[in-house]
Amino acid sequence: MKSVQLVVVGSVGLDTIETPLARCEEILGGSVSYACAAASFFVPTGMVGVVGSDFPPQHMALYQKFGVDLKGLKQVEGKTFRWSGVYEADMNNRRTLATELNVFGSFMPELPDDYRDAPFLFLANISPELQLHVLQQVKAARFVAADTMDLWINIARAPLMEVIAAVDLLTLNESEARLLAGEHNLVKAAKKIMGWGPEYLIVKKGEHGAMLFSADGVFVVPAHPLEAVNDPTGAGDTFAGGFMGALAAEGKIEPAAIRKAMAYGSVVASFGVEAFSLERLEHLTRGEIEHRFLAFKKMISLNPSDL
Amino acid sequence: MKSVQLVVVGSVGLDTIETPLARCEEILGGSVSYACAAASFFVPTGMVGVVGSDFPPQHMALYQKFGVDLKGLKQVEGKTFRWSGVYEADMNNRRTLATELNVFGSFMPELPDDYRDAPFLFLANISPELQLHVLQQVKAARFVAADTMDLWINIARAPLMEVIAAVDLLTLNESEARLLAGEHNLVKAAKKIMGWGPEYLIVKKGEHGAMLFSADGVFVVPAHPLEAVNDPTGAGDTFAGGFMGALAAEGKIEPAAIRKAMAYGSVVASFGVEAFSLERLEHLTRGEIEHRFLAFKKMISLNPSDL
Repeated sequence: MKSVQLVVVGSVGLDTIETPLARCEEILGGSVSYACAAASFFVPTGMVGVVGSDFPPQHMALYQKFGVDLKGLKQVEGKTFRWSGVYEADMNNRRTLATELNVFGSFMPELPDDYRDAPFLFLANISPELQLHVLQQVKAARFVAADTMDLWINIARAPLMEVIAAVDLLTLNESEARLLAGEHNLVKAAKKIMGWGPEYLIVKKGEHGAMLFSADGVFVVPAHPLEAVNDPTGAGDTFAGGFMGALAAEGKIEPAAIRKAMAYGSVVASFGVEAFSLERLEHLTRGEIEHRFLAFKKMISLNPSDL
Repeated sequence: MKSVQLVVVGSVGLDTIETPLARCEEILGGSVSYACAAASFFVPTGMVGVVGSDFPPQHMALYQKFGVDLKGLKQVEGKTFRWSGVYEADMNNRRTLATELNVFGSFMPELPDDYRDAPFLFLANISPELQLHVLQQVKAARFVAADTMDLWINIARAPLMEVIAAVDLLTLNESEARLLAGEHNLVKAAKKIMGWGPEYLIVKKGEHGAMLFSADGVFVVPAHPLEAVNDPTGAGDTFAGGFMGALAAEGKIEPAAIRKAMAYGSVVASFGVEAFSLERLEHLTRGEIEHRFLAFKKMISLNPSDL
């Protein structure tokens, strides 16, 4: 087996999700589940997280089916992290009904020895203190990305600022970027945040796509328009996992590689939201990804006949 | 003077606009003002509309400065159409405070003889009955586009459906597309609407850009990200005017020409919202448009070094 090229650290959860069309109980979720599944299409990916003794064996089998390396996934006595939420009619807004941290509440991420040399690292949404703890274990990562959320911006700004100063890329959604910068205008907010350290900032806009800010200027990708969005949960993590996987596969950190990785992230995320949990990604093939990637290129091209 | 290539029919108004930062009273507005100013950068454009006896002469002078042909602009006894509205903090939502139709209430658009042969026609937002009245006067337009609004979808659906069946392109914003189709999903809504006649549908998404639906598939353009949006009023009309002007200048109705025109529409609209009324467009140069068009191409390109 090839050595792990990308390490993802984050949460594993059992989600109970209600949409206008369906309700699913205790399905596999969590940021590392989505991000590792998405990245696994591109490079050998290692998962760092924690599950309880109640974690269903079939979910472990699913991770293995994706080819995800599980040396960094601890199983400990107790209950797995649970989250439940409900989506409004337009699927753009959701409300959290309950969060039970369980074993995730005392999670202390430790990288297996061979993960410490992995060239790519994605710190998915966990507390900035834990993200810093991971950063201390890393030896020579070529490219580190981090995600965060409004909770940490509000209650853990000091350690979050340390994370931001240390990583190459930060991902945020629109409202988080505004909250973090204290600035409504996204261009101004992005400039302010990049002034704190990261060379790259990705602002995720859900169904409106994502924007990359860097010294190279702004790059904008749309979301692939879908006839049916069945569950937007994990779309941001799927995007980030696909992005990091595609970038790690390319192996070069340069504008064209970053942009291509954004497009792959958007494409993989568009498959992810077609079904609940990892149901669509489980049956996704690299061929389908490439097919939609070509459609994506056509969708943003000024000269479609040149493609 | 070259003959008019594009005719625009719509409203001229005096707008009173309040944003979080400023309030402007009785400034030049209306769909034809924005659309004609935007189109004038690309082709000789003729305006069809009506103003009252109180219409300030300096606004007429401004239209002339843009080179807009005014044979179709009637000045009649009475007061000019007035509109006032207020924008919320995020500039994405606005509330109408007052509408005074005045002379616009009895507007019956008549095309001057030489406008009837113009190859491009844009029916900006007026009642579908008036749009149909204009269509009856047109001899052999190569490409006709129409805009509309929620009001007509709600109170004049039958004539609106006749307009939709007769035009080549329909422009709507997101919520109007959903309302018209009775379908929340935009892809499904677009399919339904195109089934009623138009070969092209543009869905405008404000700061998130615009989507073109056609037999050629979906094409998505972002809005140029700005550090300061001072007044979004007229952005959709500026986009449509820039689009129709650029398309008329290209002279060909084909996918690459349509896509390029979408990009020009987005670029000109991005200048328009930098200031109130036509203040920014008044001082805009074709060189500035080309400069931002290049930046726009880079913003959506997977391979910026190829440009």
